[in-house]
Amino acid sequence: MMPVPDDTRARLVEAMRYAAIGGGKRVRPLLVAATAAMFGVDRDAAVRTGCAVEAIHVYSLIHDDLPCMDDDNLRHGKPTVHKAFDEATAVLAGDSLHALAFEILSDTATSGDPFTRAELIATLSTASGMGGMAGGQMMDMVAEETDYDLHAITRLQQLKTGALLAASVEMGAILGKVAPEGRAHLRAYARDIGLAFQIADDLLDHEGDEDLAGKALRKDDEQGKQTFVTLMGPDGARQQAKALVEQAVGHLVSYGDDAALLGALARYIVERDR
Amino acid sequence: MMPVPDDTRARLVEAMRYAAIGGGKRVRPLLVAATAAMFGVDRDAAVRTGCAVEAIHVYSLIHDDLPCMDDDNLRHGKPTVHKAFDEATAVLAGDSLHALAFEILSDTATSGDPFTRAELIATLSTASGMGGMAGGQMMDMVAEETDYDLHAITRLQQLKTGALLAASVEMGAILGKVAPEGRAHLRAYARDIGLAFQIADDLLDHEGDEDLAGKALRKDDEQGKQTFVTLMGPDGARQQAKALVEQAVGHLVSYGDDAALLGALARYIVERDR
Repeated sequence: MMPVPDDTRARLVEAMRYAAIGGGKRVRPLLVAATAAMFGVDRDAAVRTGCAVEAIHVYSLIHDDLPCMDDDNLRHGKPTVHKAFDEATAVLAGDSLHALAFEILSDTATSGDPFTRAELIATLSTASGMGGMAGGQMMDMVAEETDYDLHAITRLQQLKTGALLAASVEMGAILGKVAPEGRAHLRAYARDIGLAFQIADDLLDHEGDEDLAGKALRKDDEQGKQTFVTLMGPDGARQQAKALVEQAVGHLVSYGDDAALLGALARYIVERDR
Repeated sequence: MMPVPDDTRARLVEAMRYAAIGGGKRVRPLLVAATAAMFGVDRDAAVRTGCAVEAIHVYSLIHDDLPCMDDDNLRHGKPTVHKAFDEATAVLAGDSLHALAFEILSDTATSGDPFTRAELIATLSTASGMGGMAGGQMMDMVAEETDYDLHAITRLQQLKTGALLAASVEMGAILGKVAPEGRAHLRAYARDIGLAFQIADDLLDHEGDEDLAGKALRKDDEQGKQTFVTLMGPDGARQQAKALVEQAVGHLVSYGDDAALLGALARYIVERDR
């Protein structure tokens, strides 16, 4: 899918590969695959769709790590893209992965049905743009000088992290030709795990192991940012994350054993150590 | 299409609007509209598709102007986005416009036919990614330390500028339900005007008026970059641009008067003073 061109673009593709391969929990592709499997979706289609979502996620990490954004030097235990290459290459590698996501989804190999392709693209572009991930990152950028309350932090995180996690589940259902009105339980599940995921992230930032995480921690504390941990306390946050996971699993009850993998993913999301 | 949200994302939308509105020749939307009109396409569909292409173009200008890229302070006669706002907002405004392009194209209001939507998206994502605009920008980033010959410069510009101009014509034809095998003349036209456009840009950089251009000029000369002007000389470049326009117009002959607007656009592209 990503041949290295025989010209000076080779550096760009190397940076895209460097960021995408090695490290990363692949939570989003797993959510796509686990949801798609419930509805008997062809495995190749689910893998391609998962790759598209992961391409968006990886592009967002590259841009978020830039000096003008979170200014991070380490990601997945290795130098960030702008450190290993340079800033211009990092901007362009992010932009190219962003475009690649839509190249993958618009390929007939992802789904022979154009309705499905168009719906996948609508879902992913909405989740990644101003009304989703990029919008949440914007809210986060001004967090240091803004006094966000729990309501605002929840909204910020629903956009920054929740939108793409929810899109992963939604896209699995779209591949499975589940009509929008049949996706209510899955959407409720995705909303709950999205919030639980971010609370777990805040807890890891507060008390996790930097070596395991493979990135700098304690940044929220240093920057004086409000997070779920500062607003609820570590114990309160931990309890809330667990309650959200139980609530998420509860939304899957009508699917019985078919949803076992989604249930396990929900539990992994709060129990992970990185 | 872009309501200002009632939270700290307002700054992001203001930056997107600042970059997109005011200034800009709208060459790409005009190419979409002129091509679509040849095939009796609904005007709204052509305008929406043109907006999507322009969103990609504007996103690329915002990112290209960043300090780590071309480091430009002026665009369309006003401060660039990272100067008027800040770098983080500029990165995110570019990313959000990138996503917005695919949100627009995947909306049923652009085309009720999902085949058409999926084909538009495939065309635009390919033209903007590593195999198109972003790849060309990568080649351009290393131009100072690379000894490109005319062949390599042509390839660079076909990617950096040509791909999106060609996609504009192609997307007009897609809206018009012209089958791929019926697009050969239009593609030949687009290839020629893409190259003519870039030669005209290089000539403007070399001898244009900064006030009219609304941006810094003579940058290629200062940086010692190879361009069509350095490789062919100003007169050679001018002749080549004119020859390409005549060749481009020649490809339209089978369309007769229907292609008058595309012909006029081809001539405007080399005669413009900004």
